[in-house]
Amino acid sequence: MRAVVHHGGFDVRVEHRPDPSLREPTDAVVRVLLSCICGSDLWPYRRPGERDGGPGPIGHEFLGVVEEVGADVVTVRPGDVVIAPFVWSDGTCPHCLAGVHTSCVHGGIWGRDGADGGQGEAVRVPWADGTLVVAPVAPDDERLPALLTLSDVMGTGHHAALAAGVGPGSTVAVIGDGAVGLCGVLAAHRLGAERILLLGRHEDRIAVGRGFGATDVVAERGDDAVARVLELTDGLGVAHVMECVGMQSSWDAAIAIARPGGTVGYVGVPAGVTTGLPLGTMFGRNVAVRGGVAPVRAYLPELLADVLAGVIDPSPVFDLELSLGDAPAGYAAMDERRAIKVLLRP
Amino acid sequence: MRAVVHHGGFDVRVEHRPDPSLREPTDAVVRVLLSCICGSDLWPYRRPGERDGGPGPIGHEFLGVVEEVGADVVTVRPGDVVIAPFVWSDGTCPHCLAGVHTSCVHGGIWGRDGADGGQGEAVRVPWADGTLVVAPVAPDDERLPALLTLSDVMGTGHHAALAAGVGPGSTVAVIGDGAVGLCGVLAAHRLGAERILLLGRHEDRIAVGRGFGATDVVAERGDDAVARVLELTDGLGVAHVMECVGMQSSWDAAIAIARPGGTVGYVGVPAGVTTGLPLGTMFGRNVAVRGGVAPVRAYLPELLADVLAGVIDPSPVFDLELSLGDAPAGYAAMDERRAIKVLLRP
Repeated sequence: MRAVVHHGGFDVRVEHRPDPSLREPTDAVVRVLLSCICGSDLWPYRRPGERDGGPGPIGHEFLGVVEEVGADVVTVRPGDVVIAPFVWSDGTCPHCLAGVHTSCVHGGIWGRDGADGGQGEAVRVPWADGTLVVAPVAPDDERLPALLTLSDVMGTGHHAALAAGVGPGSTVAVIGDGAVGLCGVLAAHRLGAERILLLGRHEDRIAVGRGFGATDVVAERGDDAVARVLELTDGLGVAHVMECVGMQSSWDAAIAIARPGGTVGYVGVPAGVTTGLPLGTMFGRNVAVRGGVAPVRAYLPELLADVLAGVIDPSPVFDLELSLGDAPAGYAAMDERRAIKVLLRP
Repeated sequence: MRAVVHHGGFDVRVEHRPDPSLREPTDAVVRVLLSCICGSDLWPYRRPGERDGGPGPIGHEFLGVVEEVGADVVTVRPGDVVIAPFVWSDGTCPHCLAGVHTSCVHGGIWGRDGADGGQGEAVRVPWADGTLVVAPVAPDDERLPALLTLSDVMGTGHHAALAAGVGPGSTVAVIGDGAVGLCGVLAAHRLGAERILLLGRHEDRIAVGRGFGATDVVAERGDDAVARVLELTDGLGVAHVMECVGMQSSWDAAIAIARPGGTVGYVGVPAGVTTGLPLGTMFGRNVAVRGGVAPVRAYLPELLADVLAGVIDPSPVFDLELSLGDAPAGYAAMDERRAIKVLLRP
């Protein structure tokens, strides 16, 4: 099969890899219908030098049709359209049962340690019963792009909103206008937030954010952004901050705009945070920090129902569609911010 | 009047200071019946050199009898027995209304910026209506020591428990066997925790902790303590961790023993934390951090009712009672860990 292979800094290629096959009785093999490139794929993409351990597959968001299942698999059948969360999980360990599937004792992430990546024609899925969620749609359903967002970005935005404690009537600030931040806006809106301040400055992204429910846009940077948020909130700050970037500057802003007793819900991989969180500041103002790598598997059934019912449509985060063979151009487009998020069709 | 005056490192003295009097129509003057020494008083006590700004009053926990009130004060009357939280607050600003009285726009702390300290014969109380809570008891009620804990340590322990999300059936770890940690045990027990692991190693304190509801004691230190907690929790860790110390080592343990998706509720002044919180570790395991300086005013009515009803009795945290004149000996006893918490009678 063909799949995207990451070689190192700014170097991804579409190459032939072995066709996946069942290895364990709990496996399934899924033929990919749609995959995409994640903002977090850009972290390794931008890292100079060769990839640690040599070239390997990449991509962790996909949906597809089940081709084959192992003897122990009972919840998915060949022919089912299924959505894969960005980590696999057994669904039965104490962490899965507690809703923290990302800490599953048998869990793992696509494209690492010999696992297939999501950006390819097919994927061997470990722990298929625990991992995959059946979408009751046909393989050519027009809502597939919306459903693909449940693999990561929509579930991740939802995690940020839950972590930040967003609820009916909330005033919320979303930091970051990437796909996760935009999905965070949509998630906050879905949870009943009354006022949603989006901190971002890219016209195309802001337009999507407004469509998702952002009521105010803060385009300033740094201290000016903090001042603007305080101005918009009578000097109080925001009770529910959603940090969807993971840079030092975005974290500084997140803590600074949180009102006393407020919560920063965060989901941005903190790859750009160098100094640790300022506990003294958090202590004095009772600012909480909650979040992490999103257990999107926990949210998939609920969000799936809302996509199918037309309550939410996160698909506008995809603004460029390419064939799998053009994946390198997709990486370049996202790296250069010419695209919010790139859809890949095998 | 006589009051404790802090001069610098290991130097507190009982001296004469001006008798407090009303300055604002929102003030009250309270004659102190009981005050005490806080673990957090030891931070400045132990700091070498002279006190910043010169000698000044100290102490932030007291209860007493109202002597006089300003013209605008309506909720307390001369003769009332009142409990003072460790910060004053107006009770009407947006932060007070949100329950974060420690961020009151008119707030302040006893013993700083010209305010009287709690360790003295009398105190001028700003914003008396917002600050003071009337206890319907006589000035010689035997429950006064228990009520005095509502000024800080019991409310602070309760804040840690709430911040950690403790509820019925919870498994909880309390880090620290000081007065706040012990009150944290009592607070967790009161909120319905089923299992309470107390991390501490001082026999006298552990005995109080067991009386307050601790079900397991972890006396190990550092990595051994972490290993012991994991052993006691089937390798999972604890969903609700209460950090009641504020040292680097206690924070390292707090994060390490939190189970995925768990929360560290914290109230220890983070005076000994140097490196910032490890966001990467928190991210990977979805460990939340919530807490800060406790808005004990918010909790006072509820905890007061439970003390008066006999539901809780936090008074065993006081294991040494001295007259105000012996306050220096009380500081030394707490510094040398010969006493958990020292009660001072003017």
